[in-house]
Amino acid sequence: MLNIKQQDYQEILIAQNNGVLTITLNRPHKKNAMNLALVNEVTGLFASISDSSEIRAVVLRGSEGNFCAGGDISDMHKDAASEEQRHKTVWEFNRSFGRMITQVNHAPQVVVSVLEGAVLGGGFGLACVSDVAIADANAAFSMPETGLGIIPAQIAPFVVARIGLTHARRLALLGERIGGEEAKTLGIVHFVCHSATELQEQLDRVVKQVRRCAPKANAATKALMLKVGQVELESLLDEAADAFTQSLTNDEGQEGTQAFLQKRKPNWSE
Amino acid sequence: MLNIKQQDYQEILIAQNNGVLTITLNRPHKKNAMNLALVNEVTGLFASISDSSEIRAVVLRGSEGNFCAGGDISDMHKDAASEEQRHKTVWEFNRSFGRMITQVNHAPQVVVSVLEGAVLGGGFGLACVSDVAIADANAAFSMPETGLGIIPAQIAPFVVARIGLTHARRLALLGERIGGEEAKTLGIVHFVCHSATELQEQLDRVVKQVRRCAPKANAATKALMLKVGQVELESLLDEAADAFTQSLTNDEGQEGTQAFLQKRKPNWSE
Amino acid sequence: MLNIKQQDYQEILIAQNNGVLTITLNRPHKKNAMNLALVNEVTGLFASISDSSEIRAVVLRGSEGNFCAGGDISDMHKDAASEEQRHKTVWEFNRSFGRMITQVNHAPQVVVSVLEGAVLGGGFGLACVSDVAIADANAAFSMPETGLGIIPAQIAPFVVARIGLTHARRLALLGERIGGEEAKTLGIVHFVCHSATELQEQLDRVVKQVRRCAPKANAATKALMLKVGQVELESLLDEAADAFTQSLTNDEGQEGTQAFLQKRKPNWSE
Repeated sequence: MLNIKQQDYQEILIAQNNGVLTITLNRPHKKNAMNLALVNEVTGLFASISDSSEIRAVVLRGSEGNFCAGGDISDMHKDAASEEQRHKTVWEFNRSFGRMITQVNHAPQVVVSVLEGAVLGGGFGLACVSDVAIADANAAFSMPETGLGIIPAQIAPFVVARIGLTHARRLALLGERIGGEEAKTLGIVHFVCHSATELQEQLDRVVKQVRRCAPKANAATKALMLKVGQVELESLLDEAADAFTQSLTNDEGQEGTQAFLQKRKPNWSE
Repeated sequence: MLNIKQQDYQEILIAQNNGVLTITLNRPHKKNAMNLALVNEVTGLFASISDSSEIRAVVLRGSEGNFCAGGDISDMHKDAASEEQRHKTVWEFNRSFGRMITQVNHAPQVVVSVLEGAVLGGGFGLACVSDVAIADANAAFSMPETGLGIIPAQIAPFVVARIGLTHARRLALLGERIGGEEAKTLGIVHFVCHSATELQEQLDRVVKQVRRCAPKANAATKALMLKVGQVELESLLDEAADAFTQSLTNDEGQEGTQAFLQKRKPNWSE
Repeated sequence: MLNIKQQDYQEILIAQNNGVLTITLNRPHKKNAMNLALVNEVTGLFASISDSSEIRAVVLRGSEGNFCAGGDISDMHKDAASEEQRHKTVWEFNRSFGRMITQVNHAPQVVVSVLEGAVLGGGFGLACVSDVAIADANAAFSMPETGLGIIPAQIAPFVVARIGLTHARRLALLGERIGGEEAKTLGIVHFVCHSATELQEQLDRVVKQVRRCAPKANAATKALMLKVGQVELESLLDEAADAFTQSLTNDEGQEGTQAFLQKRKPNWSE
């Protein structure tokens, strides 16, 4: 079993259960707004499981009814020895959000976000790289940055990738706030729920479906999909045929096709 | 008239009628799952009409209530002289799906898919490159691959291009099955029908609209659209102005603008 | 105050009010179809405000109940000294649409389109680069070009960028006409209204929201979003951190974070 200990983390809560790692952003007094420590903990944790096929799903959520209210702006106003030093600190803090989101985007696991309450700024960005997003109907999604005179710098690219330029530009340039239903219509989230019970049932259903899918095959599929548009199509399809051949001839492919022909569940399934 | 003979094809049915070529995948005992012979027949047929402006629309469908259940997995388990030879056979078989889908994507004709019953794996991929997709509400769309321990290798890139990463990653990593209505909501298909009659009427309406559009102009427009994101925008717009100038000054442009000014139908229209 | 005078424009109407510039395409006898003079006026006007942060929103609309019926085809049939000369004139006229649309797309202001009546061809293309699009339910969107034997050359790339290849290819290859509601479903527009009053209220609401957002921050955010997919992601995120640092430390960022902490409106807000 992967050696992840709660005592190594201050800003997030960790739980492991049967191949599912649940990460709860835990700064409820700030609606889970992210300071640098939190960002580093999330990034480090995802790095530590980047080779694990033992963990098959990661559930990302926030404590006490909010997902995440963005970056903790008070963390950006710390004293600095000089103007230059302050600029450097701000730059690094900002850039760390993009590193975290990129890390989460490329996790080999299926990342499931559970979105309640505030889903703002960096929290919105994080939601935009989850493989499956489940929202409470009352959740509030927004990029409020330009209303504060700043920009959704590390977030905007992931919002554009998630929902396209058309709606991304509208939401960012108006600082508009939308609810769970519209978030589903725009393709930010996949499922909307109207109670805590419904939300838990949806999450359970998703986790169950993840278990039906072979972990290495899922990781290879996700890696392939993330390359679309980055790698020229013909090369990508050649690479994909390599990955297919490997998947068919490795332990999972052998087991899966046997199970299919024998009309039984494969060994990775519950 | 283009010389396409049914006797040259074993796995597909061919019909020509007034500029419309209908291709029916015809392995009903396998829900039209594709073996190598079928893939080669479809690829070869599209190659043979790649210069034809006589055929203006291609209708792609499946026999006996299913579109296509994907790749015929039993075809991947044939005996081979060596492990190396087997890997090579698997690679080639897999890669042939991507070649077929690419060929269909770039057909100068308007490709219309009629999607009933199983639309799985490679069948799903094929549906994703049709210019117009008409689904029965009861059709079932899915990438079931990772549930079998393998990956939707030649399909995933076309699904991402069709509906974006957000929903593609969810469908592939959960192996989720969706119906015709959700396929429309996600942008996989354009029209959903609730009976065979309604489906036929929708198909007739689409074919009628295709006839109103000039075949060379349609082919040039489709080629242009497929280059978006592949060619730098300013160069693409220059190329587009070349194509526009040609279209306005060739036989179609002359006839079309004359017909417009004379308030009559152009000669390519019914 | 920016020195824009109505007397310098023949084909468009200009109005300035409290940071909002309204441009009305004004060739109502042609449903505001664009001749070269109109295209040049719009392009020139946007060029002249490309450094202005005084103007924060540009409203684009058409006179007398139509947005724009496309390119004025009668303008393409002028006499020319030679065939070669005519081809050159056609090429330049066509290419000028793409230049105009590109210019509008990159305006630092928030561009709001108000879409009534005919939204055809080049008018459709123009609508596709607005940051916020408000449509009347009865508006008619279409790329009718291939029905005339010509191609939507300078428009197609912007339609693909707006709504994706799936629906762009269907609309272009069928020359299909859709209304305001479907335009919203496809993501061409953000809001649909059912009366002139409702439309005006929606426009007022949008302008009010624009005022809440800092102009330089909005311009920087828009420029960033337009680079997604053009610039490699890691470089773009580095650039974005530069822009963030600048935004936090310039006048807007200082004012915005101060106002936030003091729970008051920032000075750029009404």
